[in-house]
Amino acid sequence: MQELRERIVREGKVLPGNIIKVDGFLNHRIDTDFMVRIADEFGRHFDMDQVSMILTAEASGIALAAIVAQRFHKPMIFAKKAKSDNIEGGLYQSDIFSYTYKKKVTLLVSKEWLHSTDRVLIIDDFMANGEAVRGLCDIVTGAGATLVGIGCAVEKGFQGGGDRLRAAGVNLKSLAIIESAEPGNLVFRADD
Amino acid sequence: MQELRERIVREGKVLPGNIIKVDGFLNHRIDTDFMVRIADEFGRHFDMDQVSMILTAEASGIALAAIVAQRFHKPMIFAKKAKSDNIEGGLYQSDIFSYTYKKKVTLLVSKEWLHSTDRVLIIDDFMANGEAVRGLCDIVTGAGATLVGIGCAVEKGFQGGGDRLRAAGVNLKSLAIIESAEPGNLVFRADD
Repeated sequence: MQELRERIVREGKVLPGNIIKVDGFLNHRIDTDFMVRIADEFGRHFDMDQVSMILTAEASGIALAAIVAQRFHKPMIFAKKAKSDNIEGGLYQSDIFSYTYKKKVTLLVSKEWLHSTDRVLIIDDFMANGEAVRGLCDIVTGAGATLVGIGCAVEKGFQGGGDRLRAAGVNLKSLAIIESAEPGNLVFRADD
Repeated sequence: MQELRERIVREGKVLPGNIIKVDGFLNHRIDTDFMVRIADEFGRHFDMDQVSMILTAEASGIALAAIVAQRFHKPMIFAKKAKSDNIEGGLYQSDIFSYTYKKKVTLLVSKEWLHSTDRVLIIDDFMANGEAVRGLCDIVTGAGATLVGIGCAVEKGFQGGGDRLRAAGVNLKSLAIIESAEPGNLVFRADD
């Protein structure tokens, strides 16, 4: 998505350790009208008539997922993150490793709201190693639901998480894939 | 808002300790089309032309705030929650007491994205003791910005947080105010 790549170049910051910050429009301050154009781009890739539920993980995926879900009149669920082993019952859960917190985090979704009849589109703002999305896929599997696909705004291609999912046959669409990131020099993968 | 009160009665659960769960449509699974009708209700109360920024706190307020912001073509910011004292610079911050986590939590907003020229509408899904909203007000004050008002979907009136803000002259609009909550018997305050 050309507009997204341009905004990453213009407004993003590359920090030491290949950290790419786009918190001015995507995941701290949110440009909500831009999120609608991102939603429409996902709508061109995924058959939204086939989707019954949008799923994301707290916290930074929620704003984008809510706007995508509303654009196509779908309900959404955000998986909660628990940082303890003290988890109540009635929950689908998946342990992931959080590189942000440098520790195990458990993603939780209430069994009340995700069912085997659901056809799920996972939406997230950012994919690096793909741990959060892997956990969300676990939860979809745990519910016996169908994974329609995964839509990410920005993927750090050089960390491999996205390509592992593609190799496994998942319908993953990232709207900007960054192949290498150094201050002043961002290289993107060409669009499909 | 009649539809909101009806859905709280029909779909909400009252748990011991006056806990009211509405996680089937408001803050775990999100009924995104309903959030648009909530946004329109806020639009009848607040002069959205006067608002330059929607502010909320992670995580459960983000979905509603994103949809309200998009409905009126505003940017939004969500305050991040840090659970340590190790906070980097360049941030507006406010310490609040989290009754969920039973400890101090720090709300954080980057100084880069909130300015003294901003006219802020705070949006949240739920107000009980009002600690989260108090922290968000602190951040607005810290930025030298103007607080236009506060819109909450559900307020637990009997916990007093909302009435303290009203007494202080804040333009607070809650769309359903629960005066007492016992299993099978929810009492709402009459609409303005």
